[in-house]
Amino acid sequence: MSTKLGLTVLDRGSLSAARELEDFPLRLFPEWRLPLRVAFGLMAFFFFYLLIRDVIYAYVEQRKDISYRIMVSLANKVFPIVSLIMLSLCYLPGVIAAFLQLYRGTKYRRFPDWLDRWMLCRKQMGLVALGLAFLHAIYTFIIPIRYAVRHKLISRVVDEIDNKTTPFDFDKTEAWGTDSFYVLGILGFFLYVLLGLTSLPSVGGTLSWREFSFIQSKLGHLTLGICTAHGYIYGWNKFLRPTTYKWYTPPGYMLCLIVPSVVLVLKVLLLLPCVDRTLTRIRQGWERTQPREEKFMNKSTNL
Amino acid sequence: MSTKLGLTVLDRGSLSAARELEDFPLRLFPEWRLPLRVAFGLMAFFFFYLLIRDVIYAYVEQRKDISYRIMVSLANKVFPIVSLIMLSLCYLPGVIAAFLQLYRGTKYRRFPDWLDRWMLCRKQMGLVALGLAFLHAIYTFIIPIRYAVRHKLISRVVDEIDNKTTPFDFDKTEAWGTDSFYVLGILGFFLYVLLGLTSLPSVGGTLSWREFSFIQSKLGHLTLGICTAHGYIYGWNKFLRPTTYKWYTPPGYMLCLIVPSVVLVLKVLLLLPCVDRTLTRIRQGWERTQPREEKFMNKSTNL
Amino acid sequence: MSTKLGLTVLDRGSLSAARELEDFPLRLFPEWRLPLRVAFGLMAFFFFYLLIRDVIYAYVEQRKDISYRIMVSLANKVFPIVSLIMLSLCYLPGVIAAFLQLYRGTKYRRFPDWLDRWMLCRKQMGLVALGLAFLHAIYTFIIPIRYAVRHKLISRVVDEIDNKTTPFDFDKTEAWGTDSFYVLGILGFFLYVLLGLTSLPSVGGTLSWREFSFIQSKLGHLTLGICTAHGYIYGWNKFLRPTTYKWYTPPGYMLCLIVPSVVLVLKVLLLLPCVDRTLTRIRQGWERTQPREEKFMNKSTNL
Repeated sequence: MSTKLGLTVLDRGSLSAARELEDFPLRLFPEWRLPLRVAFGLMAFFFFYLLIRDVIYAYVEQRKDISYRIMVSLANKVFPIVSLIMLSLCYLPGVIAAFLQLYRGTKYRRFPDWLDRWMLCRKQMGLVALGLAFLHAIYTFIIPIRYAVRHKLISRVVDEIDNKTTPFDFDKTEAWGTDSFYVLGILGFFLYVLLGLTSLPSVGGTLSWREFSFIQSKLGHLTLGICTAHGYIYGWNKFLRPTTYKWYTPPGYMLCLIVPSVVLVLKVLLLLPCVDRTLTRIRQGWERTQPREEKFMNKSTNL
Repeated sequence: MSTKLGLTVLDRGSLSAARELEDFPLRLFPEWRLPLRVAFGLMAFFFFYLLIRDVIYAYVEQRKDISYRIMVSLANKVFPIVSLIMLSLCYLPGVIAAFLQLYRGTKYRRFPDWLDRWMLCRKQMGLVALGLAFLHAIYTFIIPIRYAVRHKLISRVVDEIDNKTTPFDFDKTEAWGTDSFYVLGILGFFLYVLLGLTSLPSVGGTLSWREFSFIQSKLGHLTLGICTAHGYIYGWNKFLRPTTYKWYTPPGYMLCLIVPSVVLVLKVLLLLPCVDRTLTRIRQGWERTQPREEKFMNKSTNL
Repeated sequence: MSTKLGLTVLDRGSLSAARELEDFPLRLFPEWRLPLRVAFGLMAFFFFYLLIRDVIYAYVEQRKDISYRIMVSLANKVFPIVSLIMLSLCYLPGVIAAFLQLYRGTKYRRFPDWLDRWMLCRKQMGLVALGLAFLHAIYTFIIPIRYAVRHKLISRVVDEIDNKTTPFDFDKTEAWGTDSFYVLGILGFFLYVLLGLTSLPSVGGTLSWREFSFIQSKLGHLTLGICTAHGYIYGWNKFLRPTTYKWYTPPGYMLCLIVPSVVLVLKVLLLLPCVDRTLTRIRQGWERTQPREEKFMNKSTNL
């Protein structure tokens, strides 16, 4: 438990340092720059990736113009994909730091600069991810009132009646699958919002350290797990279909599941009793093999 | 008006005492334990109650497997039911305290321990209720994109066309009824969120005592009234149908209306001019029949 | 940039003065009175205006009783209309103040009292507008589960099948138009919520002046622009149809676009380089034509 506290303290100290920099008059939102750049970079990449796979593919291969999907359908794929990646990027540096400490066998050596900077903007990364999740939720709520969706529904019924040969059966697996998909999404969003609320200065201020670390670590990883499961269920029966891989490219949701899955697997490894025990001892000040003086000497030769 | 202030002050003093306990390192969220236990207890009870009444009843009596409804439909009944009960449990102790003061004729005797403890976690109870209401709202928004709902809609149309004998009329009462139901739900949720926002430390801190008490008491009871009306409209024409009482059990929404209705009736009683006047005098220090010295003597014999 | 800061400082100083007044025991929420009165006034006006245009017009001219629309459809027109007007009323006083300073050629003369009072309640106006936008969003989300909407959808399909002569084509312009309409609404609401979050005391307190002014001014005008575009797209192809002007009255959304459009046009004028340069100089203390002593003399004769 002190494990995460170590990181949190570091984080908070540096955040208050960052706050002093804010008064420097020429920079707006310095700690938001990196997260926003990452978010816009990812959004641009996935937007063009999905534009090619969905709209341009349909135009080239099937001569169908489905460009109207750009506004809502495409955006509603880009937002959750980037949101999930950003959320996992909040928890990746903590995992990397833990493995670095395990590898070095000590907590007395500083993390590399890039890891430090990354850790300092985790809160902002999480809030950007929450913003995108919020957009994803609203985009989902308005799906049924869209013209294209209503039109498709009506066409479907008209087809159904014209073509009486295939009986219109209720598929229970489909009902369970889609409902589980929605429920995981709702629960994930709910926990997301909870995490966002505790990051409000006035709410976070009323929590004790243990409580803050409990929420940010335990609840955070639970949120990541639920949202990743939400992504896996989305593609559950599409992973093995060849039609999924248009032009031999994997669909967007598969790409976005890579980082969260890696984070979750590494986190589970860290929770294994033997690993967890070593890590806890390291964070309490214990060092592998060398006494403290020797380590400082080694360090100078290592660097 | 000083009426509710008395309770609020007591509440706040004790809350800040509870905050000191938080720094005690071994307990997480001490003031959230009771509300969360009540919420999980109620949710478990209503989940199994509705599981038996809806899913198992349909399986036993009609040989239909509607287990897919567990994920969304059943959860979307459990959440609002528990949310409404939790909201009314926020306002029940205040009403009980008022009747206790009326019965005793003095404000100088301490409330029993259980009532004290209950009063101290009203804020947390309200926030748990708000969380459940939030889940209820999102579960409701995604209803139309569910597979089962779309399937039912399409089947309905197909039936409609096959069976031309019954003309498909527009029922104005139904339109008014369902729309009122939704509007009450929306307004209730809106006030719920407002109450939650004013309980944020930074927002509550900018309010004066009178304003805080106005919002928590007047607006809170209004919210409870609107949400209770939302529940009554849900069952408006089902109360007298025999099919409502499967296996001679009342439906869930009826059970959940009991506590809120009791709270509202008692609150209305307290607002009657004669009762209100007596209560105000008691809270200003007035005591029935005995002078202060005598009361203290009586108290020692009573206890 | 110092432009907006000038106004913000004035605003904040006066707000803290208003906060002292709150402790005066007999007044509840003094700074909320004017915004709430304006909001209720506008809501009452637009409610009756739309009631006459929609429900009563349909009853008188077509003998159709569509009174069930009052609960949701009518309310869902009144809320966004009043919300947009209230949002533009947040930014109108800033624009008026700028033009007044340009006209007077100095920043050393006090604004008239009504402008001062108006400026002091801009934050509350914005929050009322946010509340109405929140209601508008929820009213929109529940549209597809309404009885009347489902009924209309089913009737539409039945008609479609009976009347096979007109093929049921997909209108791409319609799809683009409605989707753009929803996307602008979603983005506007998202920015609205962001603005509301930064007005929370604890969040606003962590921002530097420049950041707060950046958000409230740049982001605020962007929000107003997006929401106004949302309104224009709503009526995009209805502006020139004669059926739009029932009983020679313009529809509600046209009326509600007047104030925002005026604010945006004036704001664009203020951003023209030549105007902006003069205004910046005035706000840095420069005065047109007269030296400072002379101005004070002129002022006494003017007043």
